[in-house]
Amino acid sequence: MKSLRDMGENKVVQRLLAQLAPPPPDLFTGPGDDCAVVPFSASQWQLLKTDAIVEGVHFLSDENFERVGWKAIARVISDFAAMGGNARWFLVTLAVSPDTNINQLESLYRGMSRCVLHFGAHIVGGETTSIAAASGMVISIAATGFVKKSHLTLRSTARCGDEIFVTGRLGGSLAGRHLEIRPRVKEAHWLCKLGYASAMMDLSDGLAKDLPRMAQASKTGFWIDLSALPCHPGCTSEQALRDGEDYELLFTTPAESGDSLIKRWQRHFPETPLTCIGRMVDKKKSMSMNGGWDHFACGK
Amino acid sequence: MKSLRDMGENKVVQRLLAQLAPPPPDLFTGPGDDCAVVPFSASQWQLLKTDAIVEGVHFLSDENFERVGWKAIARVISDFAAMGGNARWFLVTLAVSPDTNINQLESLYRGMSRCVLHFGAHIVGGETTSIAAASGMVISIAATGFVKKSHLTLRSTARCGDEIFVTGRLGGSLAGRHLEIRPRVKEAHWLCKLGYASAMMDLSDGLAKDLPRMAQASKTGFWIDLSALPCHPGCTSEQALRDGEDYELLFTTPAESGDSLIKRWQRHFPETPLTCIGRMVDKKKSMSMNGGWDHFACGK
Repeated sequence: MKSLRDMGENKVVQRLLAQLAPPPPDLFTGPGDDCAVVPFSASQWQLLKTDAIVEGVHFLSDENFERVGWKAIARVISDFAAMGGNARWFLVTLAVSPDTNINQLESLYRGMSRCVLHFGAHIVGGETTSIAAASGMVISIAATGFVKKSHLTLRSTARCGDEIFVTGRLGGSLAGRHLEIRPRVKEAHWLCKLGYASAMMDLSDGLAKDLPRMAQASKTGFWIDLSALPCHPGCTSEQALRDGEDYELLFTTPAESGDSLIKRWQRHFPETPLTCIGRMVDKKKSMSMNGGWDHFACGK
Repeated sequence: MKSLRDMGENKVVQRLLAQLAPPPPDLFTGPGDDCAVVPFSASQWQLLKTDAIVEGVHFLSDENFERVGWKAIARVISDFAAMGGNARWFLVTLAVSPDTNINQLESLYRGMSRCVLHFGAHIVGGETTSIAAASGMVISIAATGFVKKSHLTLRSTARCGDEIFVTGRLGGSLAGRHLEIRPRVKEAHWLCKLGYASAMMDLSDGLAKDLPRMAQASKTGFWIDLSALPCHPGCTSEQALRDGEDYELLFTTPAESGDSLIKRWQRHFPETPLTCIGRMVDKKKSMSMNGGWDHFACGK
């Protein structure tokens, strides 16, 4: 019998989803995108998302817990933004050892509170439960929010020929940036409002993991110019591909809109780099890419 | 500096909630009830809930994981029912060791899927993340659902003089019943629709823990007749008070409605015991009660 380590994250998720009943007809998008999309009103969808960070995996035990709290929330804000929406209501589940210092948890909550306030959201409930003394703390975040139906942007709607863009710079998040996530909310909303993004997702596990996911969801292949990757100073393109935790936007735009996008972007977001890194192509002509963050298999 | 063990669950939660910004004006009920209550439509509130179960605490490693999956979902269904509502959309977060057997997780998902289907809900998303090999699995469940505004029943609205009722029988859940939760959905909806419940919650941590919570939220005291407790065969009233995981309804009814409630209940739910166990009284005249399940302090 196989362990999760033998299979890797993508296959594990596939096997688990196969146990579920088919989605109901009024469910728009189920598992597989940054958020689930369910009906809300005539003009809006409701978005639902759950996410977790683990001590020893996503943050170290001696970290400043206020920054950990910020990270826990900001990751989820980033998922909502990548679909064109806003997170509104948060629930927090903490699984912690009884030996945990209360001051540490208070710092965590202060960081979470600061982040939800900054993005106009609210923590409305939670749950605390105990785990064995030696276990790492698990912080599980669930959120609901909304997106205008006309702004909703999925990862599964890229088309062959679309140009592939990323915002900001990639790689080297472990130097500390992974705790200072600034989700690209304004940029994502602007892209969705103006209809530039034919498909979008946020970069959490690294371009080498996330771009193939977008291509697979869109039933396309991809080709990227490795020399064009916008790397953080001091990072190699390998790091830009595989480090993960960039929380930048990865999106596609029809080729005929690329030039106009770049011009308008530079006027609106002069301080945020926007880079065309390649193109969606036919599945059969796709590059292949390995690496990026896998929760179960190979690590980085 | 204090650890969670030194403080106990209630105080820990209090300290953490103090770090949050005050709830926004359009938020009806935040942390403190079975679910959070937020605006949805003219006639309905939206309910939000998060909950977690942990290997070694809520279930054993050699358990039938299909039953564990049922339990993880049914606990949450019970919370929605206790407010008069229905859970609709579920998100599942698994924090598991890479050494976990995939078949075990598939069983877990089958059990969860069976339970959501049974109660007309759906799993629409999730997240898997890895934890250290020696750590117990954490299953965190988040759900949203709905309640008619006229049916919403809080735990904080009991009044002095109200009679206290419990459904079913209490105690001895560890004999196996804790994995076979049958949330009292029909009974709860009936009580809310007919307006019998002045306050309600579900019994998850044991009457000795949950009744004081209801009284505190309602700013009342309580008095109960220990000899009246409906115990499971073979259980003492101590067990009925403290074992926890009963998932029965605890609710209050104005004294003048008690007789009519009992008569109509017996016609509608002839197989479900309903027992008046005491009365809400002035805070100053309250019984005091210790024990029940505490996630951080004393255990059972």
